[in-house]
Amino acid sequence: MKTTILIHCKDRSGIISAITSFIHSKGGNIVYLDQHVDMEADVFFMRLESDFKTGSLHIDNFKKEFQTKLADLYQMKWSLHQDDIKPKMAIFVSKYNHCLYDLLSRFKSEELNAEIPFVISNHRDLEDIVNQFDIPFYHIPFTKDLKEEGEIQQLALLKSHNVDFIVLARYMQIITPSLIAEFPNKIINIHHSFLPAFAGAKPYHAAFERGVKIIGATSHYITEELDAGPIIEQDVTTVSHSHTIKDFILKGRDLEKIVLSRAVNLHIQRKTMVYNNKTVIFS
Amino acid sequence: MKTTILIHCKDRSGIISAITSFIHSKGGNIVYLDQHVDMEADVFFMRLESDFKTGSLHIDNFKKEFQTKLADLYQMKWSLHQDDIKPKMAIFVSKYNHCLYDLLSRFKSEELNAEIPFVISNHRDLEDIVNQFDIPFYHIPFTKDLKEEGEIQQLALLKSHNVDFIVLARYMQIITPSLIAEFPNKIINIHHSFLPAFAGAKPYHAAFERGVKIIGATSHYITEELDAGPIIEQDVTTVSHSHTIKDFILKGRDLEKIVLSRAVNLHIQRKTMVYNNKTVIFS
Amino acid sequence: MKTTILIHCKDRSGIISAITSFIHSKGGNIVYLDQHVDMEADVFFMRLESDFKTGSLHIDNFKKEFQTKLADLYQMKWSLHQDDIKPKMAIFVSKYNHCLYDLLSRFKSEELNAEIPFVISNHRDLEDIVNQFDIPFYHIPFTKDLKEEGEIQQLALLKSHNVDFIVLARYMQIITPSLIAEFPNKIINIHHSFLPAFAGAKPYHAAFERGVKIIGATSHYITEELDAGPIIEQDVTTVSHSHTIKDFILKGRDLEKIVLSRAVNLHIQRKTMVYNNKTVIFS
Amino acid sequence: MKTTILIHCKDRSGIISAITSFIHSKGGNIVYLDQHVDMEADVFFMRLESDFKTGSLHIDNFKKEFQTKLADLYQMKWSLHQDDIKPKMAIFVSKYNHCLYDLLSRFKSEELNAEIPFVISNHRDLEDIVNQFDIPFYHIPFTKDLKEEGEIQQLALLKSHNVDFIVLARYMQIITPSLIAEFPNKIINIHHSFLPAFAGAKPYHAAFERGVKIIGATSHYITEELDAGPIIEQDVTTVSHSHTIKDFILKGRDLEKIVLSRAVNLHIQRKTMVYNNKTVIFS
Repeated sequence: MKTTILIHCKDRSGIISAITSFIHSKGGNIVYLDQHVDMEADVFFMRLESDFKTGSLHIDNFKKEFQTKLADLYQMKWSLHQDDIKPKMAIFVSKYNHCLYDLLSRFKSEELNAEIPFVISNHRDLEDIVNQFDIPFYHIPFTKDLKEEGEIQQLALLKSHNVDFIVLARYMQIITPSLIAEFPNKIINIHHSFLPAFAGAKPYHAAFERGVKIIGATSHYITEELDAGPIIEQDVTTVSHSHTIKDFILKGRDLEKIVLSRAVNLHIQRKTMVYNNKTVIFS
Repeated sequence: MKTTILIHCKDRSGIISAITSFIHSKGGNIVYLDQHVDMEADVFFMRLESDFKTGSLHIDNFKKEFQTKLADLYQMKWSLHQDDIKPKMAIFVSKYNHCLYDLLSRFKSEELNAEIPFVISNHRDLEDIVNQFDIPFYHIPFTKDLKEEGEIQQLALLKSHNVDFIVLARYMQIITPSLIAEFPNKIINIHHSFLPAFAGAKPYHAAFERGVKIIGATSHYITEELDAGPIIEQDVTTVSHSHTIKDFILKGRDLEKIVLSRAVNLHIQRKTMVYNNKTVIFS
Repeated sequence: MKTTILIHCKDRSGIISAITSFIHSKGGNIVYLDQHVDMEADVFFMRLESDFKTGSLHIDNFKKEFQTKLADLYQMKWSLHQDDIKPKMAIFVSKYNHCLYDLLSRFKSEELNAEIPFVISNHRDLEDIVNQFDIPFYHIPFTKDLKEEGEIQQLALLKSHNVDFIVLARYMQIITPSLIAEFPNKIINIHHSFLPAFAGAKPYHAAFERGVKIIGATSHYITEELDAGPIIEQDVTTVSHSHTIKDFILKGRDLEKIVLSRAVNLHIQRKTMVYNNKTVIFS
Repeated sequence: MKTTILIHCKDRSGIISAITSFIHSKGGNIVYLDQHVDMEADVFFMRLESDFKTGSLHIDNFKKEFQTKLADLYQMKWSLHQDDIKPKMAIFVSKYNHCLYDLLSRFKSEELNAEIPFVISNHRDLEDIVNQFDIPFYHIPFTKDLKEEGEIQQLALLKSHNVDFIVLARYMQIITPSLIAEFPNKIINIHHSFLPAFAGAKPYHAAFERGVKIIGATSHYITEELDAGPIIEQDVTTVSHSHTIKDFILKGRDLEKIVLSRAVNLHIQRKTMVYNNKTVIFS
């Protein structure tokens, strides 16, 4: 059985040795190890993929021992993931379809090792596309008056399906603080600029106005402050004076869908860790 | 003889035909033509390279006729440049040497079709390097008290050498409004971020703090508002959580020198036009 | 009415002036002009977008006059396209679905200004996807024995639908010489390497074997020589020793679909011209 | 004291644990660990940076014990480097100056943590530049007749200065097999194409001829087969039909110098390992 362990704690001498010896003593073969020390914050991060012979690993015992022998000692925050259990991702959309098409076609092509229990939208525009891919679609309006009601419906769906994380595929509504609180560092957004440039509304218009020669897209975890959460992935493309705002938007669509899908895949593969509003992205 | 003509005016039907016919009637062969219409501002831009048989072109007559037959009619702003006359560029530096090394070694390798009458610095740190390349070096201190005095010395040097444009190769002092007024859209700066992100001081520190996955550099013309002038050229490179601020600075050095040198070369080749605080960059 | 004119001929003095004057005299307003001179081959290329007031342009008369007054004189090869007539593109696929998904979702989003009368495949694997997008699907087997038969069927379909150009979206069969002859510089392929590196089969395996740090994708027009036709568009992405062949293939999928779609859009917008087995790509 | 250890051997369960425990038991604190397993070849690679308290590390004892307790057991090939000992790099050049300027200005700016005992050239063209940077210059002609003599002189200089590795900064002569044998995976070359495309002479001409939309540069270790050694670093830039061969060469100069300097720095920092004619590049 393959497992992925994520760890972070105060940096201390001997920690790598302690962890790898423990895994080894439990019959695990470490097939991948990546580690990072944030020198300023003095924090140690590690991602470990280990292989255990079938039947040799009793997850509950392993967890208990890891906790008492290592985690308590080093005051670790840690999690263990079995690679054969797919996380459940919900997708939120509004009217733009390019990120949705890209995610759903990757899902059908088995590029995303996740389940998609449903798609939520505050509009009906993309319902046909979601149906076309045989995935349940829920229309939850989210106008000023319906916000409270909408949030209740969203949370109910997310909980009843045991959703692990949420992907905002150009969802055009503010995510409520209570939803963020329920899914800390588990709501992935795509913003259509290279943040922190052009945060907020209409970034392509602002970029055009400023006369930049490069436009970008940024995927980040949602926090309460708008467009200010931990950045997972960014990419850019060149533009010139000859491009109109419409051209910016068209070129940007390609960036947005690729950057979002990359970020989603990093999250699914447990290659992201968040600390101090920044991410560690393992290779 | 080769000439380059730059034109901008309100867009009107028939204008390309009028200009090209005029050049043709004067015996010029158009070897390159690039044009752009800013649809929003309704402005027409053109860059024309023409070849005239030796002796066939009387510059003064040509200019006079162009003015009366075309420019007056279409209310053009225009300029004509003879490709065999090299523009004179002054370089301003402070303590960082990478952009200076890059510019001077390109100059010696004849990659820059310009003259460099001198280098000005508010410090003596780079004097040896400038001497090493056999270029006059002037030390003009620029502390709070010496600002006024400094500006007078700068302007005197620039005028006595008929300097055409100025390159700020990581010059760490504010350029005074009177200097900007003397050299409108003729002072090229390099800023060490992908503007408008991280304008102002210490952009690498700010980028590190924000946890971006991409850092950049921007070359722009200096205007009175800090880091807000028309952008000529930008480029970026990827970074990760494993990079320290020192790494950002080192990776950034390579971006800065390449982006600045590209912008300088575009300016020398008269491939830049400025309008509404944006640039048209001809190919 | 908007038209796009493409021209190439031997370079001669006065040619731009002659063409722009002609358009002007016919009441056309030139909204875009791009031109290129291949100095080695001494050939002139031009792309012109012109706007004519509704009702003012009699296409047939215009064409006749253009031919006698300009084209005959300068021995031009030229074509005129009305921007309101959508070209018809056929898609050929085999088993890989990522390029197909990308093209069809762009088509549905109206990013591609073309019609797609049908998709042809030598396998049935992607039939469901094509149906899902409500486009006719034709299964034309193409084994060694069925090649001749297959080509006849392909040609019959292409002709009966007046197909203008063909897109090979990871179609894994050789295109026959007679099909190429019927569609010269009108069959767009995507090859999964930065050509000319790794032409032929299994480029990702070859790239992995060689230990490159960059992989790429190339879209080109099909010619009789395999993977040697005029290149329309290329892009690359970085890889490292930590990537397996499977990773190369996954990263490559994103490149392939983006590069192919960009090339298709350039072709649809008549921004490509072919000469001496190279392309001129207008901006 | 800081040390860097590089290890490779057949992959075996428990190896990371064994190594990290050993370092820990010797009083070392692991500040960086990166590891890679080549699954196909079944080989394990590791790079470890460790910090030892001043005076606590007896290098010779440590090496002896590492060899008997670990290396013999796991049949490791390994090396230990003290970070305070700068490697000695010789530079070979011919007539092109851009890579030389870039390396020497980085050296003077202390971007390269190495010593440069001398520069060798088969021409005198760049002698002034080398003098300008106060580095010894040796002119060693290398024509057909003088090859044997030249190689003897080269080897004598390299040995008398205890040179660790060689950088070919656009050196235009074939490196002799005996020199390669003396410096296995220690001669760094820059080739002006994205290998394996356009190996051999005149790659920019070949790229122009082929009509590519991307050109590149590749830095690799020299092996007996021309342009076929392990690739350290590659980068590319876009070109278009509007670029001449001269433009390719100019754009390429920027790529060449940056790619070569990056590769040199990776080598200096011991971040490269070679196996099966490929490199592992640690982050």
